[in-house]
Amino acid sequence: MALMRILHHWPLDPFSREIRLALAEKALEFETRIEKVWSRPEPLLALNPAGTLPVLIDDGAGVRLTVCEAGPIAEYLEEAYPATPLLPKNPAERAEARRIANWFARKYDGEVNAYLLHEKLEKGAQGLGAPDPKALRAGRDHLKWHLEYLAGLLENRDGLAGPRYCLADISAAAHLSCADYLGDVPWDQFEPARTWYARIKCRPAFRAILADRLPGLDPASHYADLDF
Amino acid sequence: MALMRILHHWPLDPFSREIRLALAEKALEFETRIEKVWSRPEPLLALNPAGTLPVLIDDGAGVRLTVCEAGPIAEYLEEAYPATPLLPKNPAERAEARRIANWFARKYDGEVNAYLLHEKLEKGAQGLGAPDPKALRAGRDHLKWHLEYLAGLLENRDGLAGPRYCLADISAAAHLSCADYLGDVPWDQFEPARTWYARIKCRPAFRAILADRLPGLDPASHYADLDF
Repeated sequence: MALMRILHHWPLDPFSREIRLALAEKALEFETRIEKVWSRPEPLLALNPAGTLPVLIDDGAGVRLTVCEAGPIAEYLEEAYPATPLLPKNPAERAEARRIANWFARKYDGEVNAYLLHEKLEKGAQGLGAPDPKALRAGRDHLKWHLEYLAGLLENRDGLAGPRYCLADISAAAHLSCADYLGDVPWDQFEPARTWYARIKCRPAFRAILADRLPGLDPASHYADLDF
Repeated sequence: MALMRILHHWPLDPFSREIRLALAEKALEFETRIEKVWSRPEPLLALNPAGTLPVLIDDGAGVRLTVCEAGPIAEYLEEAYPATPLLPKNPAERAEARRIANWFARKYDGEVNAYLLHEKLEKGAQGLGAPDPKALRAGRDHLKWHLEYLAGLLENRDGLAGPRYCLADISAAAHLSCADYLGDVPWDQFEPARTWYARIKCRPAFRAILADRLPGLDPASHYADLDF
Protein backbone atom coordinates (compact mmCIF):
# COMPACT_ATOMS: atom_id res chain seq x y z
CA MET A 1 0.00 0.00 0.00
CA ALA A 2 1.24 3.46 -0.83
CA LEU A 3 2.09 5.73 2.02
CA MET A 4 -0.81 7.93 2.96
CA ARG A 5 -0.50 11.32 4.53
CA ILE A 6 -3.40 13.76 4.43
CA LEU A 7 -3.53 17.26 5.81
CA HIS A 8 -6.94 18.78 6.48
CA HIS A 9 -6.40 22.50 6.16
CA TRP A 10 -7.70 25.83 4.94
CA PRO A 11 -5.44 27.90 2.66
CA LEU A 12 -5.52 31.09 4.74
CA ASP A 13 -5.46 29.47 8.16
CA PRO A 14 -2.07 30.37 9.68
CA PHE A 15 -1.92 27.18 11.76
CA SER A 16 -2.51 25.08 8.65
CA ARG A 17 0.21 27.01 6.84
CA GLU A 18 2.64 26.34 9.68
CA ILE A 19 2.22 22.59 9.18
CA ARG A 20 2.25 22.77 5.38
CA LEU A 21 5.62 24.52 5.73
CA ALA A 22 6.88 22.04 8.33
CA LEU A 23 5.95 19.07 6.12
CA ALA A 24 7.55 20.68 3.08
CA GLU A 25 10.77 21.51 4.98
CA LYS A 26 10.96 17.89 6.08
CA ALA A 27 10.31 16.81 2.46
CA LEU A 28 7.31 14.73 3.58
CA GLU A 29 4.76 14.31 0.80
CA PHE A 30 1.13 14.87 1.63
CA GLU A 31 -2.27 15.27 0.06
CA THR A 32 -4.50 18.11 1.15
CA ARG A 33 -8.19 18.37 1.95
CA ILE A 34 -9.64 21.85 2.20
CA GLU A 35 -12.07 22.24 5.11
CA LYS A 36 -14.58 25.05 5.44
CA VAL A 37 -13.93 25.23 9.14
CA TRP A 38 -16.55 27.92 9.88
CA SER A 39 -19.39 25.61 8.87
CA ARG A 40 -18.13 23.05 11.43
CA PRO A 41 -18.28 20.06 9.05
CA GLU A 42 -19.14 16.78 10.78
CA PRO A 43 -16.24 14.78 9.28
CA LEU A 44 -13.79 17.37 10.63
CA LEU A 45 -15.43 17.34 14.07
CA ALA A 46 -15.08 13.55 14.10
CA LEU A 47 -11.32 13.98 13.56
CA ASN A 48 -10.89 16.96 15.89
CA PRO A 49 -13.71 17.72 18.35
CA ALA A 50 -12.42 21.29 18.67
CA GLY A 51 -13.34 21.76 15.00
CA THR A 52 -10.07 23.55 14.34
CA LEU A 53 -7.32 23.07 11.77
CA PRO A 54 -4.96 21.59 10.85
CA VAL A 55 -5.49 17.86 11.29
CA LEU A 56 -2.87 15.43 10.00
CA ILE A 57 -3.64 11.82 9.15
CA ASP A 58 -0.36 9.97 8.97
CA ASP A 59 0.35 6.36 8.09
CA GLY A 60 4.08 7.01 8.12
CA ALA A 61 4.83 5.16 11.35
CA GLY A 62 3.04 2.02 10.20
CA VAL A 63 -0.22 2.68 12.04
CA ARG A 64 -2.71 5.35 11.08
CA LEU A 65 -2.44 8.31 13.42
CA THR A 66 -4.66 11.37 13.68
CA VAL A 67 -2.80 14.37 15.05
CA CYS A 68 -4.68 17.60 15.75
CA GLU A 69 -3.52 21.21 16.06
CA ALA A 70 -0.32 22.86 14.83
CA GLY A 71 1.66 22.68 18.10
CA PRO A 72 1.07 18.96 18.70
CA ILE A 73 1.60 18.18 14.99
CA ALA A 74 4.94 20.01 14.96
CA GLU A 75 6.13 18.07 18.03
CA TYR A 76 4.88 14.82 16.47
CA LEU A 77 6.73 15.47 13.21
CA GLU A 78 9.95 16.20 15.12
CA GLU A 79 9.68 12.88 16.91
CA ALA A 80 8.50 10.74 13.99
CA TYR A 81 10.74 12.29 11.30
CA PRO A 82 13.88 13.59 13.00
CA ALA A 83 16.02 13.61 9.83
CA THR A 84 15.46 17.31 9.09
CA PRO A 85 14.96 18.80 12.54
CA LEU A 86 12.82 21.93 12.85
CA LEU A 87 13.77 22.52 16.48
CA PRO A 88 17.36 23.46 17.40
CA LYS A 89 19.39 20.90 19.39
CA ASN A 90 20.64 23.30 22.07
CA PRO A 91 18.15 23.44 25.00
CA ALA A 92 18.23 27.26 25.23
CA GLU A 93 17.52 27.72 21.50
CA ARG A 94 14.94 24.96 21.66
CA ALA A 95 13.09 26.76 24.47
CA GLU A 96 13.36 30.02 22.52
CA ALA A 97 11.96 28.42 19.35
CA ARG A 98 9.00 27.02 21.27
CA ARG A 99 8.48 30.33 23.08
CA ILE A 100 8.15 32.15 19.75
CA ALA A 101 5.91 29.51 18.18
CA ASN A 102 3.75 29.77 21.31
CA TRP A 103 3.81 33.60 21.02
CA PHE A 104 2.24 33.33 17.57
CA ALA A 105 -0.22 30.61 18.57
CA ARG A 106 -1.56 32.61 21.52
CA LYS A 107 -0.49 36.25 21.61
CA TYR A 108 -0.30 37.14 17.91
CA ASP A 109 -3.38 35.03 17.23
CA GLY A 110 -5.42 36.93 19.83
CA GLU A 111 -4.04 40.36 18.96
CA VAL A 112 -3.81 40.22 15.17
CA ASN A 113 -5.62 37.22 13.62
CA ALA A 114 -8.65 37.74 15.87
CA TYR A 115 -9.00 41.19 14.27
CA LEU A 116 -7.68 41.05 10.70
CA LEU A 117 -8.51 37.46 9.68
CA HIS A 118 -11.74 37.46 11.63
CA GLU A 119 -12.98 40.72 10.09
CA LYS A 120 -11.79 40.10 6.55
CA LEU A 121 -12.24 36.35 6.12
CA GLU A 122 -14.34 34.68 8.81
CA LYS A 123 -17.11 37.30 8.92
CA GLY A 124 -17.54 37.14 5.16
CA ALA A 125 -17.53 33.35 5.09
CA GLN A 126 -20.10 33.22 7.87
CA GLY A 127 -22.31 35.98 6.43
CA LEU A 128 -21.68 38.22 9.45
CA GLY A 129 -21.40 41.39 7.40
CA ALA A 130 -18.68 43.81 6.42
CA PRO A 131 -15.42 44.29 8.36
CA ASP A 132 -15.58 46.77 11.24
CA PRO A 133 -13.08 49.58 10.46
CA LYS A 134 -12.32 50.06 14.18
CA ALA A 135 -11.40 46.39 14.58
CA LEU A 136 -9.26 46.49 11.42
CA ARG A 137 -7.40 49.52 12.76
CA ALA A 138 -6.80 47.78 16.09
CA GLY A 139 -5.50 44.66 14.33
CA ARG A 140 -3.13 46.72 12.17
CA ASP A 141 -1.84 48.60 15.24
CA HIS A 142 -1.17 45.34 17.05
CA LEU A 143 0.53 43.95 13.96
CA LYS A 144 2.95 46.91 13.91
CA TRP A 145 3.85 46.24 17.50
CA HIS A 146 4.54 42.57 16.68
CA LEU A 147 6.70 43.54 13.69
CA GLU A 148 8.67 45.89 15.92
CA TYR A 149 9.23 43.03 18.34
CA LEU A 150 10.42 40.72 15.53
CA ALA A 151 12.71 43.45 14.18
CA GLY A 152 14.25 43.71 17.66
CA LEU A 153 14.89 39.96 17.80
CA LEU A 154 16.46 40.04 14.34
CA GLU A 155 18.98 42.73 15.33
CA ASN A 156 21.15 40.07 16.95
CA ARG A 157 20.45 36.99 14.89
CA ASP A 158 19.48 35.76 11.43
CA GLY A 159 16.62 33.57 12.58
CA LEU A 160 14.00 34.44 15.16
CA ALA A 161 15.26 31.96 17.73
CA GLY A 162 18.94 31.74 16.83
CA PRO A 163 21.37 31.50 13.95
CA ARG A 164 19.41 28.90 12.01
CA TYR A 165 15.97 28.78 10.39
CA CYS A 166 13.67 26.77 12.65
CA LEU A 167 10.11 26.29 13.90
CA ALA A 168 10.04 29.86 15.26
CA ASP A 169 10.57 31.26 11.75
CA ILE A 170 8.10 28.80 10.23
CA SER A 171 5.43 29.73 12.75
CA ALA A 172 6.00 33.48 12.40
CA ALA A 173 6.12 33.34 8.59
CA ALA A 174 2.94 31.24 8.47
CA HIS A 175 1.04 33.82 10.50
CA LEU A 176 2.48 36.90 8.79
CA SER A 177 1.92 35.42 5.32
CA CYS A 178 -1.85 35.47 5.94
CA ALA A 179 -1.83 39.16 6.87
CA ASP A 180 0.43 39.74 3.87
CA TYR A 181 -2.05 38.05 1.51
CA LEU A 182 -4.56 40.64 2.75
CA GLY A 183 -2.06 43.47 2.15
CA ASP A 184 -1.89 44.41 5.84
CA VAL A 185 1.84 44.10 6.54
CA PRO A 186 3.69 47.46 6.37
CA TRP A 187 7.01 45.90 5.38
CA ASP A 188 8.60 49.23 4.39
CA GLN A 189 8.51 50.37 8.02
CA PHE A 190 10.25 47.24 9.32
CA GLU A 191 13.31 46.59 7.20
CA PRO A 192 14.87 43.78 9.33
CA ALA A 193 11.57 41.90 9.28
CA ARG A 194 11.30 42.41 5.50
CA THR A 195 14.82 41.07 4.90
CA TRP A 196 14.02 38.04 7.07
CA TYR A 197 10.69 37.40 5.28
CA ALA A 198 12.29 37.86 1.84
CA ARG A 199 14.76 35.08 2.67
CA ILE A 200 11.93 32.78 3.77
CA LYS A 201 9.87 33.53 0.65
CA CYS A 202 12.70 32.12 -1.46
CA ARG A 203 12.67 28.74 0.26
CA PRO A 204 11.25 25.95 -1.92
CA ALA A 205 8.98 24.96 1.00
CA PHE A 206 7.25 28.33 0.69
CA ARG A 207 6.20 27.95 -2.95
CA ALA A 208 2.83 26.34 -2.29
CA ILE A 209 1.96 29.10 0.20
CA LEU A 210 2.72 31.79 -2.39
CA ALA A 211 0.61 29.94 -4.98
CA ASP A 212 -2.53 29.99 -2.79
CA ARG A 213 -5.45 31.88 -4.30
CA LEU A 214 -8.73 32.27 -2.47
CA PRO A 215 -11.73 32.27 -4.85
CA GLY A 216 -13.06 35.82 -5.05
CA LEU A 217 -10.22 37.35 -3.04
CA ASP A 218 -6.96 38.04 -4.83
CA PRO A 219 -3.83 38.55 -2.74
CA ALA A 220 -2.04 41.89 -2.42
CA SER A 221 -0.06 42.57 -5.60
CA HIS A 222 3.33 41.98 -3.94
CA TYR A 223 2.20 38.79 -2.17
CA ALA A 224 4.03 36.24 -4.35
CA ASP A 225 6.77 38.68 -5.40
CA LEU A 226 10.15 37.47 -4.16
CA ASP A 227 11.62 40.95 -4.54
CA PHE A 228 8.94 43.02 -2.78
CA MET B 1 26.57 25.83 44.44
CA ALA B 2 23.16 24.52 45.31
CA LEU B 3 20.82 23.76 42.48
CA MET B 4 18.59 26.67 41.68
CA ARG B 5 15.17 26.38 40.15
CA ILE B 6 12.74 29.27 40.36
CA LEU B 7 9.21 29.41 39.05
CA HIS B 8 7.68 32.82 38.46
CA HIS B 9 3.95 32.28 38.85
CA TRP B 10 0.64 33.54 40.16
CA PRO B 11 -1.37 31.22 42.42
CA LEU B 12 -4.60 31.33 40.43
CA ASP B 13 -3.06 31.35 36.97
CA PRO B 14 -3.97 27.98 35.40
CA PHE B 15 -0.83 27.88 33.25
CA SER B 16 1.34 28.41 36.33
CA ARG B 17 -0.56 25.65 38.13
CA GLU B 18 0.07 23.28 35.22
CA ILE B 19 3.82 23.70 35.66
CA ARG B 20 3.72 23.59 39.47
CA LEU B 21 1.97 20.23 39.08
CA ALA B 22 4.41 19.03 36.41
CA LEU B 23 7.42 19.93 38.59
CA ALA B 24 5.87 18.26 41.63
CA GLU B 25 5.02 15.07 39.68
CA LYS B 26 8.62 14.92 38.53
CA ALA B 27 9.77 15.52 42.13
CA LEU B 28 11.81 18.53 41.03
CA GLU B 29 12.28 21.04 43.85
CA PHE B 30 11.70 24.69 43.09
CA GLU B 31 11.31 28.05 44.73
CA THR B 32 8.44 30.29 43.73
CA ARG B 33 8.16 33.99 43.02
CA ILE B 34 4.67 35.44 42.86
CA GLU B 35 4.22 37.92 39.99
CA LYS B 36 1.39 40.43 39.78
CA VAL B 37 1.14 39.85 36.08
CA TRP B 38 -1.59 42.47 35.44
CA SER B 39 0.77 45.31 36.45
CA ARG B 40 3.27 44.12 33.82
CA PRO B 41 6.31 44.21 36.14
CA GLU B 42 9.56 45.12 34.36
CA PRO B 43 11.60 42.19 35.76
CA LEU B 44 8.99 39.75 34.43
CA LEU B 45 8.95 41.45 31.01
CA ALA B 46 12.74 41.12 30.91
CA LEU B 47 12.33 37.36 31.37
CA ASN B 48 9.31 36.96 29.09
CA PRO B 49 8.50 39.82 26.70
CA ALA B 50 4.92 38.52 26.44
CA GLY B 51 4.53 39.38 30.13
CA THR B 52 2.74 36.09 30.76
CA LEU B 53 3.28 33.29 33.26
CA PRO B 54 4.78 30.93 34.12
CA VAL B 55 8.50 31.45 33.61
CA LEU B 56 10.96 28.83 34.81
CA ILE B 57 14.59 29.60 35.60
CA ASP B 58 16.45 26.32 35.68
CA ASP B 59 20.08 25.61 36.50
CA GLY B 60 19.43 21.88 36.39
CA ALA B 61 21.23 21.20 33.12
CA GLY B 62 24.39 23.00 34.22
CA VAL B 63 23.70 26.29 32.46
CA ARG B 64 21.04 28.74 33.52
CA LEU B 65 18.03 28.48 31.26
CA THR B 66 14.95 30.69 31.08
CA VAL B 67 11.93 28.85 29.74
CA CYS B 68 8.69 30.74 29.13
CA GLU B 69 5.08 29.57 28.87
CA ALA B 70 3.45 26.36 30.05
CA GLY B 71 3.57 24.43 26.76
CA PRO B 72 7.27 25.04 26.10
CA ILE B 73 8.14 24.45 29.78
CA ALA B 74 6.30 21.10 29.78
CA GLU B 75 8.20 19.98 26.67
CA TYR B 76 11.47 21.20 28.19
CA LEU B 77 10.88 19.29 31.43
CA GLU B 78 10.12 16.12 29.47
CA GLU B 79 13.42 16.42 27.62
CA ALA B 80 15.60 17.55 30.53
CA TYR B 81 14.12 15.25 33.19
CA PRO B 82 12.79 12.14 31.46
CA ALA B 83 12.84 9.96 34.60
CA THR B 84 9.14 10.47 35.41
CA PRO B 85 7.58 11.04 31.99
CA LEU B 86 4.43 13.17 31.79
CA LEU B 87 3.78 12.29 28.16
CA PRO B 88 2.84 8.72 27.18
CA LYS B 89 5.36 6.72 25.12
CA ASN B 90 2.93 5.53 22.46
CA PRO B 91 2.72 8.08 19.57
CA ALA B 92 -1.09 7.99 19.42
CA GLU B 93 -1.50 8.63 23.16
CA ARG B 94 1.26 11.22 23.00
CA ALA B 95 -0.61 13.12 20.26
CA GLU B 96 -3.81 12.80 22.26
CA ALA B 97 -2.17 14.15 25.44
CA ARG B 98 -0.82 17.15 23.55
CA ARG B 99 -4.17 17.70 21.82
CA ILE B 100 -5.92 17.94 25.17
CA ALA B 101 -3.25 20.17 26.75
CA ASN B 102 -3.58 22.39 23.66
CA TRP B 103 -7.39 22.31 24.02
CA PHE B 104 -7.08 23.81 27.50
CA ALA B 105 -4.39 26.30 26.49
CA ARG B 106 -6.44 27.69 23.61
CA LYS B 107 -10.07 26.61 23.56
CA TYR B 108 -10.90 26.34 27.28
CA ASP B 109 -8.78 29.43 27.97
CA GLY B 110 -10.73 31.49 25.45
CA GLU B 111 -14.15 30.10 26.35
CA VAL B 112 -13.94 29.79 30.14
CA ASN B 113 -10.91 31.58 31.66
CA ALA B 114 -11.49 34.66 29.50
CA TYR B 115 -14.90 34.95 31.16
CA LEU B 116 -14.68 33.57 34.70
CA LEU B 117 -11.09 34.39 35.67
CA HIS B 118 -11.14 37.67 33.79
CA GLU B 119 -14.36 38.84 35.40
CA LYS B 120 -13.68 37.59 38.92
CA LEU B 121 -9.91 38.06 39.28
CA GLU B 122 -8.32 40.22 36.59
CA LYS B 123 -10.93 42.98 36.61
CA GLY B 124 -10.71 43.33 40.39
CA ALA B 125 -6.90 43.35 40.38
CA GLN B 126 -6.85 45.97 37.65
CA GLY B 127 -9.59 48.13 39.21
CA LEU B 128 -11.87 47.55 36.21
CA GLY B 129 -15.00 47.20 38.32
CA ALA B 130 -17.42 44.45 39.28
CA PRO B 131 -17.91 41.25 37.27
CA ASP B 132 -20.45 41.46 34.45
CA PRO B 133 -23.24 38.93 35.23
CA LYS B 134 -23.79 38.23 31.52
CA ALA B 135 -20.13 37.34 31.01
CA LEU B 136 -20.15 35.15 34.11
CA ARG B 137 -23.20 33.30 32.80
CA ALA B 138 -21.53 32.77 29.43
CA GLY B 139 -18.37 31.45 31.11
CA ARG B 140 -20.37 29.02 33.25
CA ASP B 141 -22.32 27.80 30.20
CA HIS B 142 -19.09 27.17 28.30
CA LEU B 143 -17.63 25.42 31.33
CA LYS B 144 -20.58 22.99 31.40
CA TRP B 145 -19.97 22.15 27.77
CA HIS B 146 -16.29 21.47 28.50
CA LEU B 147 -17.21 19.24 31.47
CA GLU B 148 -19.59 17.31 29.26
CA TYR B 149 -16.76 16.81 26.77
CA LEU B 150 -14.40 15.57 29.50
CA ALA B 151 -17.09 13.25 30.87
CA GLY B 152 -17.41 11.77 27.37
CA LEU B 153 -13.66 11.15 27.14
CA LEU B 154 -13.68 9.50 30.56
CA GLU B 155 -16.38 7.00 29.58
CA ASN B 156 -13.76 4.87 27.87
CA ARG B 157 -10.63 5.54 29.88
CA ASP B 158 -9.34 6.45 33.35
CA GLY B 159 -7.18 9.33 32.22
CA LEU B 160 -8.12 12.01 29.70
CA ALA B 161 -5.67 10.80 27.06
CA GLY B 162 -5.41 7.11 27.89
CA PRO B 163 -5.14 4.63 30.71
CA ARG B 164 -2.50 6.56 32.65
CA TYR B 165 -2.36 9.97 34.33
CA CYS B 166 -0.40 12.31 32.07
CA LEU B 167 0.06 15.89 30.88
CA ALA B 168 -3.54 15.98 29.59
CA ASP B 169 -4.86 15.38 33.10
CA ILE B 170 -2.40 17.84 34.62
CA SER B 171 -3.37 20.55 32.18
CA ALA B 172 -7.12 19.97 32.60
CA ALA B 173 -6.90 19.77 36.40
CA ALA B 174 -4.81 22.95 36.55
CA HIS B 175 -7.44 24.88 34.59
CA LEU B 176 -10.47 23.39 36.33
CA SER B 177 -8.93 23.90 39.78
CA CYS B 178 -9.00 27.67 39.23
CA ALA B 179 -12.70 27.65 38.37
CA ASP B 180 -13.22 25.33 41.35
CA TYR B 181 -11.49 27.78 43.70
CA LEU B 182 -14.12 30.31 42.58
CA GLY B 183 -16.93 27.80 43.17
CA ASP B 184 -17.94 27.68 39.50
CA VAL B 185 -17.64 23.95 38.72
CA PRO B 186 -20.99 22.11 38.92
CA TRP B 187 -19.39 18.77 39.80
CA ASP B 188 -22.70 17.16 40.82
CA GLN B 189 -23.92 17.31 37.22
CA PHE B 190 -20.80 15.61 35.83
CA GLU B 191 -20.10 12.53 37.88
CA PRO B 192 -17.33 10.99 35.69
CA ALA B 193 -15.46 14.31 35.77
CA ARG B 194 -15.91 14.51 39.55
CA THR B 195 -14.54 10.98 40.07
CA TRP B 196 -11.56 11.83 37.87
CA TYR B 197 -10.89 15.12 39.69
CA ALA B 198 -11.27 13.46 43.12
CA ARG B 199 -8.51 11.01 42.20
CA ILE B 200 -6.24 13.86 41.09
CA LYS B 201 -6.93 15.87 44.26
CA CYS B 202 -5.48 12.99 46.30
CA ARG B 203 -2.13 13.07 44.51
CA PRO B 204 0.71 14.46 46.65
CA ALA B 205 1.63 16.79 43.77
CA PHE B 206 -1.74 18.49 44.17
CA ARG B 207 -1.29 19.48 47.84
CA ALA B 208 0.30 22.87 47.20
CA ILE B 209 -2.51 23.77 44.77
CA LEU B 210 -5.14 22.95 47.40
CA ALA B 211 -3.25 25.03 49.98
CA ASP B 212 -3.36 28.20 47.86
CA ARG B 213 -5.22 31.08 49.47
CA LEU B 214 -5.65 34.40 47.71
CA PRO B 215 -5.63 37.36 50.14
CA GLY B 216 -9.18 38.66 50.44
CA LEU B 217 -10.73 35.85 48.41
CA ASP B 218 -11.38 32.56 50.14
CA PRO B 219 -11.92 29.47 48.00
CA ALA B 220 -15.27 27.68 47.72
CA SER B 221 -15.88 25.64 50.88
CA HIS B 222 -15.32 22.27 49.13
CA TYR B 223 -12.16 23.46 47.33
CA ALA B 224 -9.57 21.58 49.41
CA ASP B 225 -11.97 18.82 50.47
CA LEU B 226 -10.78 15.47 49.13
CA ASP B 227 -14.25 13.98 49.53
CA PHE B 228 -16.37 16.68 47.89
